[in-house]
Amino acid sequence: MTPDSRHSAAQKAGLPPGSLVHVGHRLAGETVISVMNYSPQQLVEASPTSIAEALAYYGSDSISWVIVEGLAAVDVVEAIGAHFNIHRLVLEDILSTHQRPKFEEYDDYLFIVLKALMAQDRDGFKVDYEQVSMLVMAHGVVVFKEKRDELLAPVQQRIRTSKGRFRSLGPDFLTYSILDAIVDQNFVLMDSLDEAITAVEDALLSDDPSTDILNTIQNLKRQIVSIRRYISPVRELVNEMLRSESALVDEKTHIYLRDVSDHALRIVESVELHRDIISGLLDIYISSVSNKMNQVMTVLTVFATIFIPLTFLTGIYGMNFEYMPELRWHWSYPVMWVIFITLPVVLLLYFKRKNWL
Amino acid sequence: MTPDSRHSAAQKAGLPPGSLVHVGHRLAGETVISVMNYSPQQLVEASPTSIAEALAYYGSDSISWVIVEGLAAVDVVEAIGAHFNIHRLVLEDILSTHQRPKFEEYDDYLFIVLKALMAQDRDGFKVDYEQVSMLVMAHGVVVFKEKRDELLAPVQQRIRTSKGRFRSLGPDFLTYSILDAIVDQNFVLMDSLDEAITAVEDALLSDDPSTDILNTIQNLKRQIVSIRRYISPVRELVNEMLRSESALVDEKTHIYLRDVSDHALRIVESVELHRDIISGLLDIYISSVSNKMNQVMTVLTVFATIFIPLTFLTGIYGMNFEYMPELRWHWSYPVMWVIFITLPVVLLLYFKRKNWL
Amino acid sequence: MTPDSRHSAAQKAGLPPGSLVHVGHRLAGETVISVMNYSPQQLVEASPTSIAEALAYYGSDSISWVIVEGLAAVDVVEAIGAHFNIHRLVLEDILSTHQRPKFEEYDDYLFIVLKALMAQDRDGFKVDYEQVSMLVMAHGVVVFKEKRDELLAPVQQRIRTSKGRFRSLGPDFLTYSILDAIVDQNFVLMDSLDEAITAVEDALLSDDPSTDILNTIQNLKRQIVSIRRYISPVRELVNEMLRSESALVDEKTHIYLRDVSDHALRIVESVELHRDIISGLLDIYISSVSNKMNQVMTVLTVFATIFIPLTFLTGIYGMNFEYMPELRWHWSYPVMWVIFITLPVVLLLYFKRKNWL
Amino acid sequence: MTPDSRHSAAQKAGLPPGSLVHVGHRLAGETVISVMNYSPQQLVEASPTSIAEALAYYGSDSISWVIVEGLAAVDVVEAIGAHFNIHRLVLEDILSTHQRPKFEEYDDYLFIVLKALMAQDRDGFKVDYEQVSMLVMAHGVVVFKEKRDELLAPVQQRIRTSKGRFRSLGPDFLTYSILDAIVDQNFVLMDSLDEAITAVEDALLSDDPSTDILNTIQNLKRQIVSIRRYISPVRELVNEMLRSESALVDEKTHIYLRDVSDHALRIVESVELHRDIISGLLDIYISSVSNKMNQVMTVLTVFATIFIPLTFLTGIYGMNFEYMPELRWHWSYPVMWVIFITLPVVLLLYFKRKNWL
Amino acid sequence: MTPDSRHSAAQKAGLPPGSLVHVGHRLAGETVISVMNYSPQQLVEASPTSIAEALAYYGSDSISWVIVEGLAAVDVVEAIGAHFNIHRLVLEDILSTHQRPKFEEYDDYLFIVLKALMAQDRDGFKVDYEQVSMLVMAHGVVVFKEKRDELLAPVQQRIRTSKGRFRSLGPDFLTYSILDAIVDQNFVLMDSLDEAITAVEDALLSDDPSTDILNTIQNLKRQIVSIRRYISPVRELVNEMLRSESALVDEKTHIYLRDVSDHALRIVESVELHRDIISGLLDIYISSVSNKMNQVMTVLTVFATIFIPLTFLTGIYGMNFEYMPELRWHWSYPVMWVIFITLPVVLLLYFKRKNWL
Repeated sequence: MTPDSRHSAAQKAGLPPGSLVHVGHRLAGETVISVMNYSPQQLVEASPTSIAEALAYYGSDSISWVIVEGLAAVDVVEAIGAHFNIHRLVLEDILSTHQRPKFEEYDDYLFIVLKALMAQDRDGFKVDYEQVSMLVMAHGVVVFKEKRDELLAPVQQRIRTSKGRFRSLGPDFLTYSILDAIVDQNFVLMDSLDEAITAVEDALLSDDPSTDILNTIQNLKRQIVSIRRYISPVRELVNEMLRSESALVDEKTHIYLRDVSDHALRIVESVELHRDIISGLLDIYISSVSNKMNQVMTVLTVFATIFIPLTFLTGIYGMNFEYMPELRWHWSYPVMWVIFITLPVVLLLYFKRKNWL
Repeated sequence: MTPDSRHSAAQKAGLPPGSLVHVGHRLAGETVISVMNYSPQQLVEASPTSIAEALAYYGSDSISWVIVEGLAAVDVVEAIGAHFNIHRLVLEDILSTHQRPKFEEYDDYLFIVLKALMAQDRDGFKVDYEQVSMLVMAHGVVVFKEKRDELLAPVQQRIRTSKGRFRSLGPDFLTYSILDAIVDQNFVLMDSLDEAITAVEDALLSDDPSTDILNTIQNLKRQIVSIRRYISPVRELVNEMLRSESALVDEKTHIYLRDVSDHALRIVESVELHRDIISGLLDIYISSVSNKMNQVMTVLTVFATIFIPLTFLTGIYGMNFEYMPELRWHWSYPVMWVIFITLPVVLLLYFKRKNWL
Repeated sequence: MTPDSRHSAAQKAGLPPGSLVHVGHRLAGETVISVMNYSPQQLVEASPTSIAEALAYYGSDSISWVIVEGLAAVDVVEAIGAHFNIHRLVLEDILSTHQRPKFEEYDDYLFIVLKALMAQDRDGFKVDYEQVSMLVMAHGVVVFKEKRDELLAPVQQRIRTSKGRFRSLGPDFLTYSILDAIVDQNFVLMDSLDEAITAVEDALLSDDPSTDILNTIQNLKRQIVSIRRYISPVRELVNEMLRSESALVDEKTHIYLRDVSDHALRIVESVELHRDIISGLLDIYISSVSNKMNQVMTVLTVFATIFIPLTFLTGIYGMNFEYMPELRWHWSYPVMWVIFITLPVVLLLYFKRKNWL
Repeated sequence: MTPDSRHSAAQKAGLPPGSLVHVGHRLAGETVISVMNYSPQQLVEASPTSIAEALAYYGSDSISWVIVEGLAAVDVVEAIGAHFNIHRLVLEDILSTHQRPKFEEYDDYLFIVLKALMAQDRDGFKVDYEQVSMLVMAHGVVVFKEKRDELLAPVQQRIRTSKGRFRSLGPDFLTYSILDAIVDQNFVLMDSLDEAITAVEDALLSDDPSTDILNTIQNLKRQIVSIRRYISPVRELVNEMLRSESALVDEKTHIYLRDVSDHALRIVESVELHRDIISGLLDIYISSVSNKMNQVMTVLTVFATIFIPLTFLTGIYGMNFEYMPELRWHWSYPVMWVIFITLPVVLLLYFKRKNWL
Repeated sequence: MTPDSRHSAAQKAGLPPGSLVHVGHRLAGETVISVMNYSPQQLVEASPTSIAEALAYYGSDSISWVIVEGLAAVDVVEAIGAHFNIHRLVLEDILSTHQRPKFEEYDDYLFIVLKALMAQDRDGFKVDYEQVSMLVMAHGVVVFKEKRDELLAPVQQRIRTSKGRFRSLGPDFLTYSILDAIVDQNFVLMDSLDEAITAVEDALLSDDPSTDILNTIQNLKRQIVSIRRYISPVRELVNEMLRSESALVDEKTHIYLRDVSDHALRIVESVELHRDIISGLLDIYISSVSNKMNQVMTVLTVFATIFIPLTFLTGIYGMNFEYMPELRWHWSYPVMWVIFITLPVVLLLYFKRKNWL
């Protein structure tokens, strides 16, 4: 099934709102924390073993970026919540990995949650979803990720290399860079989807259509429905961030956010385009099934229509009546052969004219 | 049929507006009243036998939660209406259990009505609807429910256990908790729906498709249409509550209500997702019927195309003409067998090449 | 055809705008006028023979309700128009019984026109439409109806019985009561529609599907399209009345109008629900036709596939060649019978495994 | 093809914007100018041969209505443009007869362009489009029409006959009258469309469905798509005229324009209604094709299923084996006849029970 | 596949935002720069070999129009960006040729990007896309085009010939002229599309429908989806330009831009119209396949139904029972012939009455 919110929510039904329990797929490994603390002058990278250690870097003279990978350790989220005085419902949203992408503005921080979508390597087109939450504060950003992967590596790399400009900009620019990395990831996904669709199209044209293709089409349809669900709110999220009057988002960052918004719109349109194409595939499939049946029926009809009358003729002279004058006539048999040859030729010409052959 | 408003309304057509008659399914049991009266310091629970007794708890130094289960006793609703000076049309809405979810703001109270949706245990996917109305006042909440069930038990439990925080908050937080319990119930429903859909998918793939599956799909479709009807206005309801400037809804409760609104949106999206999937099922069903017919026709065509010409051949030499030279030729019969074997082989190879086998 | 506006308008095309001609179906009977004049203290009912007599009741110390049934007598409408100084286009709208439901606000009066919908008693589901126009003035309401029926009897009855409250309220409350009666009438219509749909569903499941069912479905579809056309603007009409700042609509009546608006919305949703269900019926119908053909083809294929090869076998030994050694062998005939029995059994087992039987 | 804008525009592509060339179908006849100059006191009608002569009537003490029929004479449009100082793009729009209906407000004049739709007399339902442009100025209206026809004759007749009221009103009332005449023309069109649909319905029920019907349905669909395209913007046009604050549209004319807007809405709804009905026709058509095939297949199956086993039986005793004891038994032949009669009866009863007959 | 944004974006994923790399199809030839510098008095045309040379023309006393054809030379874009102080994200958008049409307003310049659509000359309907970006500044316009073609030749020609008016207007009028040229190009495209659709319609009616037609329809559908994607935002783009309060767009140019907006709307409507027509084609195709199968089945049924019973009859008298009295009766054989002739005639009459022939 699609990555759906109900399992978790169903698990939680009955618990008081605001209860901190991790709902979602349990992560195999540990919860891993990493820190980047940077200012134009310096850059410190660390992999602290405790959250207290990580939070110690946070200060007003530099920008701290804390990444928490894996959400099994509820206490880590609790500690961060306590340190920055985060609302319980926000912490609950971070832990429940079935959130709809959204932007929420609080007095001292911004809360962003969205999904990173990645095509799986397994056979068939399948999408992996990873929830990424962000707390944007005056002097840093805390990112919560479900899994350990290379999703944010490009952003980290940029901090390491392009010292000058990036490091002199605030947490809002860091937030933008993270959003940009996650949104642009979808273009790769669209490529995979495109390949999957092309494969189906080739199968439809080369092969005889099997029910398998139908399942593949239905799977693609469902994947698209599911992708759309997580991608379409992203643009709205960014636009709300643009409309927000929070001091945490600088005017200068707006143009960058608008760029992300544009990319999100392009992806949504691309998803819509693929949806239309997949609907068209179904029409081709149904038509090709129908066409094949047509062809089969035509062959049957041509054969049956030619031989059934002839067989009737042979039946006549296979009868055992005593008084059948033709039986004794010398030319009967050759005349029959003339009929046996003429009738099919006439019928074949008729079918030819009717475009059945 | 779906739980529809017309029966009741049709029953009432002709009566003056504002007539208090219970329209809807008559409850088997009695009308049961229960009261929770709490403040940070104390908690009183009671099951009064008369409504006057229940209303006696209501006072400005504590919060009273009155639950009326079963709407057959019109006088209970009348008494509450008279006590709190509720508008007749509101009382009418409480008693007529076919309301659309809505929020109405009055000077001294708020009126909320919505549907709790529960999957039935019976075979096949079926939804039970229970109308829940709420009157939110300065010092308490009155809840009217159609049935006796455990729907609000988690909220009651929270009041009993988490003394500190919950009990110090006002009736708006209690209202939020009730809404949250009802909305989150829908996640369980989505789970059941998901199972029902998966069952249909399995049946479509394993079995040969029968008309039964079609009925199941049609039933699921109708259930979804009906679910959507009662779920989609809930978000609007909560948002109107957020926009309301009533003193009865504290600014601090807004963030909680927004959370409910988010959950409602997720459920609506989940319903839409399921609707799309069910439409896809119908396509698969129709295609598999078509595929099966294709297969049947191909078998018929292959058999007929092979044996009809051969039967014609045997017919020729079954004729009783006196002058048929082949009949007397010694190798005629073996030659016929060569033909009987060669012709089918040729045709089978032809069908093979056409991908019919 | 559906009750459509074009016939009338086509009849009128060419006439100057504002020409007073009754367009629509001509009423068989006479135009009948009835008057109710009431104040909290008294109630006068009359059936005046001339419109002048009816208008004499109108005065500032009581509320007059004039009902004009039948629109053939154009002079009655003219007289009322002249007496209350009504705009010519309004009079034209009253007489042309093909109006879209709408609300118009003028300085001294309000104009409301809508359709009362009633299920016909004839076999098959069919809707009767009656146009009802209202002129709401400071001291009374004039209602124009196309037909003589019991549509407004409940409202009249209320005026007669519930003396106190109703009679002390103004023409706006009377207007509300009339609207409420007309809108609630639709719930009865929805009941009839529901019955008609259930009948089709039963026919689809019990019987073999005939083209008749298709016509019934198509008829239901058209009725629904037509119902929707006249019902969906009603809510808008009421909402415009709510938004209007006319002194003729008292603030206190707003809550009642909102109730009517709610009912109208419920009916619109019910119509939408039925529309979805009817679309589903068409899918079931088409599928059941397809299923039946599948079944027919399977029977044909099973019979043909079993007997065609056997007939070929009998054909072989029906040939008259002189040198056919098997003909003389003693066990030939019993061996043939073994084949005649074994082959069908094998084929039947094969079809069984393919789920064709 | 539908009357589409691209031909003209494609012809013009490459020309500088604002180039005055008549694009569209060339009118066979001449460009004809007629003038009506009226005031409450007098009425002058003229058919001037030059545009200068026509413009001489224009003055502040009367209202001039100039009608230009046929757009081949570009110089006429140029002269009017120069005389009233009309923007070049407006003149270009007048000459290019592929405009979308629109309303434009300029300082000294209003520009209105829309399409008059008329059903053609030829067999099959087909719509003729005529572009009508209007320049509304302080003391007159200039109307440009593509063709010479009776479209505006009723308005001219009204000016001639109803001297009092009409002639005392301004150019805005004249504009309204023209719009009203053009919009009401569509009701006649809807009548023709209705007849065409009824004809298809009758053909679907009486006849056997042929591909011709399909083409007719497709043609109706295209005509509807095309009609909608030119009708749906008309309401918007009138509403923009209502919202306009130009001194050229008097407050008193608003109620008349609202009436036109209402009519336009009714026509749009009628078009939508017909569109739904036509979609239903396609469903009926496809179903009836499917039904007919079902019937054909059933006949084939019944015949084949009855006679194929019997033929096999005759085949058995047509074999020439020497040792076939039944051949010599005296009752064999009568027993066969019993079988020949019993078997079909049994099968027919079976088919009867299956509702195939 | 359709010209989609993902390839490029996927190529860029991982690069820091704002990296200037040309993404898109690499241009075969060189990057070519051309300059038109004009004032009412003079006109200079040049083909500078370096961008510095081109920028030297830019000055406040004349209007400079720089056209950069081919985007492979990133340094050219860089140089222009540096010279006019253009934001890096804008430069990035210019180089990435997969932009959605949009309008962006900056303090000193306006940025417009859109697609020019051209029908390809190859067989089958196919659309070529070329991205055109514009930087509109106080004294000139810089246009970036992907390819070398004649797209803007008409605008260049107008500058050369119509000296007076055009050259005295500002860069906003030049911008309008370019937009107008690109938008009007689409009318030519619609013509090609129209021809392609007409070709399919002819093939559907004349020929027997093949799967090829289905592919053609599917291709047209995809082209339309893709066209719509790039055309529908153009209107929005122009409207945003109209709403913009930038000093770079003169009030007088508004009416011209509105004209472009109108044309864009007409094209969008034309695209929608074609989409509807293509959907109708698919219905015709499916129906004609179904019709043909119907015809084939009817022929089979008529033949089989006539000859199968007759063959059974011949089978009876082909049996070798010793005691078959009819065999010896003299009139048996002629009676059989009577049956052989009567039965088919009866059946044919029956089929005739059923409209099968």
